[in-house]
Amino acid sequence: YVASSPANMELEDASKEESEDGASDASLHKPSLPSDFDRLYKVVEDNPEDFNGWVYLLQYVEQENHLLASRKAFDAFFLHYPYCYGYWKKYADIEKKHGCIQVADEVYRRGLQAIPLSVDLWLHYITFLRENQDTSDGEAENRIRAVYEHAVLAAGTDFRSDRLWEAYINWETEQEKLANVTAIYDRILGIPTQLYSQHFQRFKEHVQNNNPKHFLSEEEFVQLRLELAAANKPSAEGEEEVPSEEVTEIENMRHRVIETRQEIFNHNEHEVSKRWAFEEGIKRPYFHVKALEKTQLSNWREYLDFELENGTPERVVVLFERCLIACALYEEFWIKYAKYLESYSTEGVRHVFKKACTIHLPKKPTIHVLWAAFEEQQGNIEDARGILKGLEEAVPGLAMVRLRRVSLERRHGNLDEAEALLRDAITNGKNASESSFYSVKLARQLLKVQRSIGKARNVLLEAIEKDETCPKLYLNLLELEYSGDVQQNEAEILACFDRALSSPMLLESRVTFSQRKVEFLEDFGSDINVLVTAYEQHQKLLKEQETTKRKSDNGKITFEVLNSVLCILEMFYRFFQVTVHKKKLHLCFWQVSRARLEETAHG
Amino acid sequence: YVASSPANMELEDASKEESEDGASDASLHKPSLPSDFDRLYKVVEDNPEDFNGWVYLLQYVEQENHLLASRKAFDAFFLHYPYCYGYWKKYADIEKKHGCIQVADEVYRRGLQAIPLSVDLWLHYITFLRENQDTSDGEAENRIRAVYEHAVLAAGTDFRSDRLWEAYINWETEQEKLANVTAIYDRILGIPTQLYSQHFQRFKEHVQNNNPKHFLSEEEFVQLRLELAAANKPSAEGEEEVPSEEVTEIENMRHRVIETRQEIFNHNEHEVSKRWAFEEGIKRPYFHVKALEKTQLSNWREYLDFELENGTPERVVVLFERCLIACALYEEFWIKYAKYLESYSTEGVRHVFKKACTIHLPKKPTIHVLWAAFEEQQGNIEDARGILKGLEEAVPGLAMVRLRRVSLERRHGNLDEAEALLRDAITNGKNASESSFYSVKLARQLLKVQRSIGKARNVLLEAIEKDETCPKLYLNLLELEYSGDVQQNEAEILACFDRALSSPMLLESRVTFSQRKVEFLEDFGSDINVLVTAYEQHQKLLKEQETTKRKSDNGKITFEVLNSVLCILEMFYRFFQVTVHKKKLHLCFWQVSRARLEETAHG
Repeated sequence: YVASSPANMELEDASKEESEDGASDASLHKPSLPSDFDRLYKVVEDNPEDFNGWVYLLQYVEQENHLLASRKAFDAFFLHYPYCYGYWKKYADIEKKHGCIQVADEVYRRGLQAIPLSVDLWLHYITFLRENQDTSDGEAENRIRAVYEHAVLAAGTDFRSDRLWEAYINWETEQEKLANVTAIYDRILGIPTQLYSQHFQRFKEHVQNNNPKHFLSEEEFVQLRLELAAANKPSAEGEEEVPSEEVTEIENMRHRVIETRQEIFNHNEHEVSKRWAFEEGIKRPYFHVKALEKTQLSNWREYLDFELENGTPERVVVLFERCLIACALYEEFWIKYAKYLESYSTEGVRHVFKKACTIHLPKKPTIHVLWAAFEEQQGNIEDARGILKGLEEAVPGLAMVRLRRVSLERRHGNLDEAEALLRDAITNGKNASESSFYSVKLARQLLKVQRSIGKARNVLLEAIEKDETCPKLYLNLLELEYSGDVQQNEAEILACFDRALSSPMLLESRVTFSQRKVEFLEDFGSDINVLVTAYEQHQKLLKEQETTKRKSDNGKITFEVLNSVLCILEMFYRFFQVTVHKKKLHLCFWQVSRARLEETAHG
Repeated sequence: YVASSPANMELEDASKEESEDGASDASLHKPSLPSDFDRLYKVVEDNPEDFNGWVYLLQYVEQENHLLASRKAFDAFFLHYPYCYGYWKKYADIEKKHGCIQVADEVYRRGLQAIPLSVDLWLHYITFLRENQDTSDGEAENRIRAVYEHAVLAAGTDFRSDRLWEAYINWETEQEKLANVTAIYDRILGIPTQLYSQHFQRFKEHVQNNNPKHFLSEEEFVQLRLELAAANKPSAEGEEEVPSEEVTEIENMRHRVIETRQEIFNHNEHEVSKRWAFEEGIKRPYFHVKALEKTQLSNWREYLDFELENGTPERVVVLFERCLIACALYEEFWIKYAKYLESYSTEGVRHVFKKACTIHLPKKPTIHVLWAAFEEQQGNIEDARGILKGLEEAVPGLAMVRLRRVSLERRHGNLDEAEALLRDAITNGKNASESSFYSVKLARQLLKVQRSIGKARNVLLEAIEKDETCPKLYLNLLELEYSGDVQQNEAEILACFDRALSSPMLLESRVTFSQRKVEFLEDFGSDINVLVTAYEQHQKLLKEQETTKRKSDNGKITFEVLNSVLCILEMFYRFFQVTVHKKKLHLCFWQVSRARLEETAHG
């Protein structure tokens, strides 16, 4: 990832500098903020995921034209939404309006560091630079060229980077550096972009309208001339050049120049054709908080898989970076990216996880758990611990996170801590069923890891006391008793069955336990009398169940069924050429289903 | 049960006697059977449950009027259908027609022993006796009276026994034994029967039309006279009786006689009223091979429960006996009866089981298994063994029977035999899934009873080789490895997971195993790397599953849904007053569902 952002390299230096216009001092005096600021700011502070809240806040500070408030608002905003390139420009414009040119420059640099693939932001920045540059030292042109270079290095392999390349070409043309123009064309002609064919067309015009002496580098010009001379032996003796011969040579050179580019163009066209459908499928390449359509998501998936199969690592990385602007809120792509980087760079993987978890997806559990696992794999146990704990604080009550914390401690020998975490989860469970879930986990841990059947049994018995209707608890108690010698433990196992059977559990579950009791006695029981009695009790339960079932079956038409009925009826009507209003149909169904429901209620 | 058939007591003596007309010798000469006999006989011999086959055979022998063939056919028939009272009469008639009066008598006695509650058969028998009795010794009347006594003892508490009582009363009246008639009324007036009120009416007529001296026993007559005299003091001095006073005394006596019966009648009427609805519900009191309606079955259930709650043991037993004529082919009533008798008589229970299993329900597993359990409870292991083995020979391949045979051997320490029975079941399983079922049972037995984890593992591995797609096998292997020290066995457990995951099991099952693998590693695994890898593989499987599911969901209309549609459509049509032929409707559904199925196939 880092490798893909070459723009960072020099831009970073300026980003930490203190602004020079003293505005930062003013921020110490609180009363200077406009009236509604605090209220609007509190909304987003409390809920940073409220994007509309941010929009109101930023509109407010812009409209108030208040520098200090703007800085506070924008700086806070970009901690959460660094991909909103338009707001970076707004921020820089505000600074410029207040005369803080240096700070505006800094804002642009921060923005480009956050979203180096943004062609728009690069173009805005260059426009800003050209309008505000200091031309006194005679280095202005070189400075602009350096920025263009950064821009195309950072964003120039994007399929939609054509405007940037065109701007660069136009600017060099304006500077009358035609050899530079040719050099730029030599780069863009090899990059698959949307307007690849237009570039070639313009390149040909550039060649036709100018003299090779001007649009070729000295080196290429000399070499080409020698090549053409060698091919044109008869006239290779005299030094004087006939004017008509000169014209022919220029034409020949132009022809050769285009001919050599034609091959590159053909190859590039082929590369473009392979990606065209995927690029067509990207309807929203920019960041937005609204959900993406399913088809766009699967287009990204397939495009990435295509590049992973066919592209160079550089192309893959650029595509991931593009994808993660449009799909920044979808953890699957971050995870895919991290997974891809695994074989290249541990630091890269960490960077992706960190960016995803700390900026874009602070509340998504899966990617946090994967990040923690990654750090644990790297031996950074404390980091792993911190990531999981942090997530739990942000989103409390997630079982997968608590269980991973438990297993992290267990893997590193902290059995007491593992047990404590489970006991805490039992105590603080949202409801009985959640506590029971953790009780089962703790009991297994105690039985299988701590090897204490007594402690395990107590955990389950306590859980049953609090959650008498939970089949899982009885089942686990049963498995616990069953894990020993079934013949010696027969009495305990039977007691466990009877505890379940006399509990207020659902009849359906009790039937299952009763069935299992009969099976247990058949397979392992010592006494035929007990088996016969259990069988009889089972028959009674079955009869009870049948009675209950018969009652409820009478009026059972699910909405699913009704819906199917409706679909089929419509087809059916078409089939028989009968016309019935859909409303009438619905009415009919409503009446039918009501009648059935009433039947059930009375039955 | 035995107690309820007092008719047996004396009738049994005669039942074993050899017939005297030499017909039994003739049965040794095979050629004497009519031409089609062998063919018809073979049908029922091969399939005794083919009731129509029996009907054809019995019609044939009756029509051929062939004594030997009739005997062979009827004797064989009654081994299976002793409750068909009409055929006992037919049999006796054939014997009589051939002049074998003694054998006919014997046939009746056998029939009455088999179905002592049959009022019809008793009446036929008495008619037969009166027509064919030897009157030379002057004991004819007493013999007939004795048979009537047997009859009312055996069948006289049946709610529908009125015709028998009436016949008895009429016969005694014919014999001019009016005191006997009164004694019979005294019995029937206390028994709840269908015509209870008619009996009282006729009793009153009997009293009005006759002289107390004749219709009362001497004892009652004397006592009543004394009572009346004491109540009528003024005239208690003289001995001479004025005619008008005599008439008054007769009237008073009649009045008193009826008055004392009135109380009994009232009480009996109350008992009748409690049973009236149940008796009304019995639409088919006799035996038939056709299934009984559900409402009749539940009527029997409720009636039995009523008598069990309210009736005397005698009433309960008679009701069971009546029920088991109508419901002889329903094991639930036999089981209920056996259960009821448990607290009264071990021999009674055995008798019920034996009768049910050997005569009426030779192929019903549950009652056989219960009978075997009963004999095992009594310590008759060899009998239990024989019952189960016999059933397995009659109905091979029933898991519940084989498992009971296994558990019987296990309970009595024959572990080798238990293992051999399971291995035999594995080898001879109808299909892979059945063999796998027994493999799981055997593996558990080996692990938990024989305590040989190695043998258990081998059984499961061999089973997996033959049935690679059975989740239960992998699950049991997993449980086996998991039963030890999970930390030490981590490699084996993971190998077991991987075996399941790389198997050709259904994707759905593999997803479950994959989920469990992740859980196992989270709960007990030692290495975060393995956990992360397992998690990634699980995600891949989930994605695969989703793709498959999406495809199949498109064309999913179950038959259940189609059926509901059909029902609702019919209502719907009535609602809109549209008439459509049901056939057309079916055709339409067929086309709709075909279209959907094709969609699925192509999707």
